[in-house]
Amino acid sequence: MKHLALALATAGLLAPAFAAPKKAPAPKKTAQQILAGSPASHWRALDPENTLLMELASGQVLIELAPRFAPAHAANIRALARGGYWDGLAIVRVQDNFVTQWGDPDGEDAAKARPLPASASPKLPAEFSVPLDHVGKSAGFARLPDQEGWAPRTGFAEGFPVAADPKTGKAWLAHCYGMVGAGRSDAVDSSNGTELYAVIGQAPRGLDLNITVVGRVLKGMEHLAALPRGTAAMGFYDKPEQRTGIQRVRLLAQLPLEERPALQVLKTESSTWTQLLDARRHRGGWFVHSPGYIDVCSASVPTRPTPQAPK
Amino acid sequence: MKHLALALATAGLLAPAFAAPKKAPAPKKTAQQILAGSPASHWRALDPENTLLMELASGQVLIELAPRFAPAHAANIRALARGGYWDGLAIVRVQDNFVTQWGDPDGEDAAKARPLPASASPKLPAEFSVPLDHVGKSAGFARLPDQEGWAPRTGFAEGFPVAADPKTGKAWLAHCYGMVGAGRSDAVDSSNGTELYAVIGQAPRGLDLNITVVGRVLKGMEHLAALPRGTAAMGFYDKPEQRTGIQRVRLLAQLPLEERPALQVLKTESSTWTQLLDARRHRGGWFVHSPGYIDVCSASVPTRPTPQAPK
Repeated sequence: MKHLALALATAGLLAPAFAAPKKAPAPKKTAQQILAGSPASHWRALDPENTLLMELASGQVLIELAPRFAPAHAANIRALARGGYWDGLAIVRVQDNFVTQWGDPDGEDAAKARPLPASASPKLPAEFSVPLDHVGKSAGFARLPDQEGWAPRTGFAEGFPVAADPKTGKAWLAHCYGMVGAGRSDAVDSSNGTELYAVIGQAPRGLDLNITVVGRVLKGMEHLAALPRGTAAMGFYDKPEQRTGIQRVRLLAQLPLEERPALQVLKTESSTWTQLLDARRHRGGWFVHSPGYIDVCSASVPTRPTPQAPK
Repeated sequence: MKHLALALATAGLLAPAFAAPKKAPAPKKTAQQILAGSPASHWRALDPENTLLMELASGQVLIELAPRFAPAHAANIRALARGGYWDGLAIVRVQDNFVTQWGDPDGEDAAKARPLPASASPKLPAEFSVPLDHVGKSAGFARLPDQEGWAPRTGFAEGFPVAADPKTGKAWLAHCYGMVGAGRSDAVDSSNGTELYAVIGQAPRGLDLNITVVGRVLKGMEHLAALPRGTAAMGFYDKPEQRTGIQRVRLLAQLPLEERPALQVLKTESSTWTQLLDARRHRGGWFVHSPGYIDVCSASVPTRPTPQAPK
């Protein structure tokens, strides 16, 4: 009967701080109004050298790499894409409230495994964190005033959710919804970017600092999150025919200009992003209780179609 | 190539505290071993008067109601199920990383809306919270030592994730993955349980204290979370044929004994649950970093098939 009206829509688009005052006035602008009023300079184009386009029968998935946090993995993933490594491979695992994972179904069988392109490396260092000073103000780190339990410091840098610990001097990408990581086995340096996963449920923050996070899904999460769950252990598919085939994965730089998605990403160092987060902390309208808080995984950085130049 | 091995499986099943020591020794037992060793008395049967069975073409969804937190809604939902209210209605909305919602697609059209069973009420009070003393030790409240930003106190009661604020004297069900709520429009008392939603993404904790939470999905979340996302505003489906039909919804009490799922739920007041949470805070094996922390939405209470009595 009730359609949860606008309220839930707004909640879904964005959502309230420990350090922030609990009874702040409701913001004057809605998220939509803040976005509509944002200056062009608060948006950036996709970097063709750092953006992957994965094509599935159901649609396109756009993934932004995070070379500041995982430089060796990002470089290897670029080489794998340029070599057509994933073309014809498959989504092999979908575990409810956890991850969707793709790669070579025969990857563990040396006789059948797809060879890596010559320019890609079979072995990379673990890239679980970077020194905290790599993610300082110079890298546009926008720290959240809100405190959480998983890490002493959180915020956003270059569009990614980041956690950090001044005591250890480390910063790392947080395992939020839509983040993409590189599967590994027991050895910390056993990932090479061939097998990737995207988070499709509650942020599994216990994985933070345990695995290399390589980027995030900018667009097309629904093509990864709405897949049938695998019924074998850990959500792997029982039968090859249950897998979802990957048509191809390319770096945008490999594609003709007209085939590249015309999208922009909001800069997380912009005041527009700060305003959006604040609008989510301090709710009005349908909301009768304003949480006064937000956590690093409860807001994702918006994209928009690239505005057409006036003719 | 790497299948994220056991590590991610364990992470998915369970995952680490602010107040807990950061360098506690790795637990001696895995989650599987803790569950396998749990005494029969740590498990409870499903309450036939408080458990709904929703049947979809893809399978069954089992929902446990929370009468301690939403007594009027739970009673109305019982009456709606007994009256066959949802039979032949539909899932009308799936918004990625937010909610799957079901009810009467014609609910807002008085001429076409399905009438309520005589025993159900069209109007209920808002049930956004209960007095904190309703969720004390007598109700089996198992408080988490771990601090989070959304609420000053969290824990589990009767199988549900609970948040509370001693200053306001309120306790409420937390919007975690799999929780079920009652859609409302602008008026706080505009929900009556006919239109329900389940959380299918990152916990939208900003909804806490803004809407009545009525229970949680015990089993079958994959049938709600893997549905195609709606492409109209807020994830509603554009066309009636895109909706997923609901075959029927029944209280277990309405079903013959042999049709009731033979499941048990772990008691959250049991030491087995405490041990599971601790195993998730303090990780070993594949994990090289143990978070020493858990939040109320990062662990869900297990179910198991009812053990067969020895013959």
